[in-house]
Amino acid sequence: MNFPVLYLRKGAERRLRAGHLWVYSNEVDIRRSPLTAFEPGDQAEVRASNDKPLGTVFVNPHALICGRLISRDPGQGMTPQRLTQRMEVALAIRDRLFDRPFYRWVFGDSDGLSGLVVDRFGDTVVVQISSAGMERMKDAVVRAVQRLVQPTSIILKNDGKMRRVEGLETYVEQAYGAETDRLLVEENGARFEVALAGAQKTGWFYDHRMNRRRLQAYAPGKRVLDVFSYVGGWGLQAAMAGAAEVTCVDASAVALEAVHHNARLNGLEPVRTLAGDAFEVLKGLAEDKQKFDVVVLDPPALIPRRRDQKAGEQAYARLNQLGLRLLERDGVLVSASCSMHLSQERLVDILRASGRKIDRFVQLLEQGHQAPDHPVIPGIPETDYIKACFVRSLTGFL
Amino acid sequence: MNFPVLYLRKGAERRLRAGHLWVYSNEVDIRRSPLTAFEPGDQAEVRASNDKPLGTVFVNPHALICGRLISRDPGQGMTPQRLTQRMEVALAIRDRLFDRPFYRWVFGDSDGLSGLVVDRFGDTVVVQISSAGMERMKDAVVRAVQRLVQPTSIILKNDGKMRRVEGLETYVEQAYGAETDRLLVEENGARFEVALAGAQKTGWFYDHRMNRRRLQAYAPGKRVLDVFSYVGGWGLQAAMAGAAEVTCVDASAVALEAVHHNARLNGLEPVRTLAGDAFEVLKGLAEDKQKFDVVVLDPPALIPRRRDQKAGEQAYARLNQLGLRLLERDGVLVSASCSMHLSQERLVDILRASGRKIDRFVQLLEQGHQAPDHPVIPGIPETDYIKACFVRSLTGFL
Repeated sequence: MNFPVLYLRKGAERRLRAGHLWVYSNEVDIRRSPLTAFEPGDQAEVRASNDKPLGTVFVNPHALICGRLISRDPGQGMTPQRLTQRMEVALAIRDRLFDRPFYRWVFGDSDGLSGLVVDRFGDTVVVQISSAGMERMKDAVVRAVQRLVQPTSIILKNDGKMRRVEGLETYVEQAYGAETDRLLVEENGARFEVALAGAQKTGWFYDHRMNRRRLQAYAPGKRVLDVFSYVGGWGLQAAMAGAAEVTCVDASAVALEAVHHNARLNGLEPVRTLAGDAFEVLKGLAEDKQKFDVVVLDPPALIPRRRDQKAGEQAYARLNQLGLRLLERDGVLVSASCSMHLSQERLVDILRASGRKIDRFVQLLEQGHQAPDHPVIPGIPETDYIKACFVRSLTGFL
Repeated sequence: MNFPVLYLRKGAERRLRAGHLWVYSNEVDIRRSPLTAFEPGDQAEVRASNDKPLGTVFVNPHALICGRLISRDPGQGMTPQRLTQRMEVALAIRDRLFDRPFYRWVFGDSDGLSGLVVDRFGDTVVVQISSAGMERMKDAVVRAVQRLVQPTSIILKNDGKMRRVEGLETYVEQAYGAETDRLLVEENGARFEVALAGAQKTGWFYDHRMNRRRLQAYAPGKRVLDVFSYVGGWGLQAAMAGAAEVTCVDASAVALEAVHHNARLNGLEPVRTLAGDAFEVLKGLAEDKQKFDVVVLDPPALIPRRRDQKAGEQAYARLNQLGLRLLERDGVLVSASCSMHLSQERLVDILRASGRKIDRFVQLLEQGHQAPDHPVIPGIPETDYIKACFVRSLTGFL
């Protein structure tokens, strides 16, 4: 195929060569190849300033990420066939690692499909498209999903914030099959029901699956506090593993209603729920002198943008100190983060400083990351975002 | 108790305050507190230059690490009672996380017992002492082991290299119970027999236990290559999980004999073993055009000291490229490192560069660390040393 050419400025090919898949708009040589010549979602060949071919990209002239690499072969554009083939490659590793069809099937750039996320919930498949290039492939995506896994329902949940950046409208659409208003999730032996209306992201966060599995080893017979619980992913899986008592904290009363519903769904004893701002609720629990054996902190990204780094790290520090204070003399803190801007190293250092500040001997027992259905691409730091530190906190030990 | 005082130079208290447990000999104010006044293994109170008490330490005037913190309370020295209590605290978390008595019970500084390592192999306990202070507690250690777990055999395997630095003799001694010349290990459902004579470290590396467990998810039906296999920990556990074919590579013919023995012990089909330098063996396999579905690289520390950083990183890069080249078009590389001087981040970057160099699309599926019986102390970087990257390598994908 012959594509129009997008020329990069001198040196701007370095990131692509190192393994990244994005071109930023200020890296384009707009004198040689004006971005205005492209429509959002067009395909182009990308070349270095010395004319060396680098591959093909989806172009969006209006977005900061104006190029998303399709292939390192300048002759290969995105076609329905190539899309299907990549979805098949993505499916193969999930099928190999997970017994049941509950996982993230496609994780955007990490699966060579920039702008596409596909999650499987049994017979239901939820698709999220976040780039103009992938929006053009929408029908091909739906057909590939149908062909590869024969679902009963496909939902296009195209209501993410990133779409605005790409100049795309937001909408939710039943693209195929039976009208679906709730998802049934299975994870580590527990079941969850999530209403699609008002659900976060695709409705579920499979990314912490392995960390929730590890939580189960710490739960039996223990009092567990699940902070930022959403619909109860951590807390109810701890209950399934034999926790003596579970308390879920979330700002959303709707999410906490779902916690109760999901507890019943799994035949569990009722769990305690506390609605409110997590920081305030934790302070209240500390004033009440309440103690827990296991505290799970899984906040939303507290460092949403690079410029929030300092304030965000301080928020993590405050939160982790509050969590440590609520622990028994020999307790376990599970400190999670989904901030791409908070490295594992920084989180561990926040735990170090928090422990020292309130004189706890802190042992980092396990360092968890995102599950293998969310592969990290070593050249794309943006793909590596989930951390979970399992910390034992001892009082009066040393 | 009243201890002689060890004064630090100005500012030298910072590392202890931040969470570390060591004092280096150049940090001591030798005019106020000459190290020559101490015998190896003496206990002392340690104070900042402004006289503020920092705690108690074991002193070794001849070692670079001349102080090892016992307690942050200047009144609390090490006693048989305190030692037993700390061993009990260490035991509690292992007992909670592991079904069977096969694990590292005490991991030195990480368990508040600098210079002491204790591994459990069922009814047999192997103790390693590596500091003059802990050597003085030897009898108390043996008594605590007896009291807390009633083993049939306790072996003092005091033959580590670190002992020389501390001015201690090396020896192996049956400290209690039945004369023992081999260890029986259980890990992730597999059994191993290890001869004590000539065994590495305590005889087994429990630190990779969780990573070997994860390998089992990738093994069924696959051809697995285990490089630096020692007695077959990775390879035979892959075989147990249903690998179609296992090849173990090690420089030691004795270790490979043990691989065959351990295969029989687990009722497995015979595995292939290749004796020789790993780099040479891998090159030979590549020249023979042999391919594998899964390649495990678990080399000894290739960066033994900080000054070996550059050469060591180059060795990791060479090794990982060799590993990637031996993979099928859709294969999995398990790249492990036990070099404290190689960060997770650097290892991931070596994988990135290796993948780019030979044009593989590399997906980092899982990032493993040391098992929870080897806790990391956030203030002591030396305690964080194990990494295992599970990488999917795709040829002709993007």
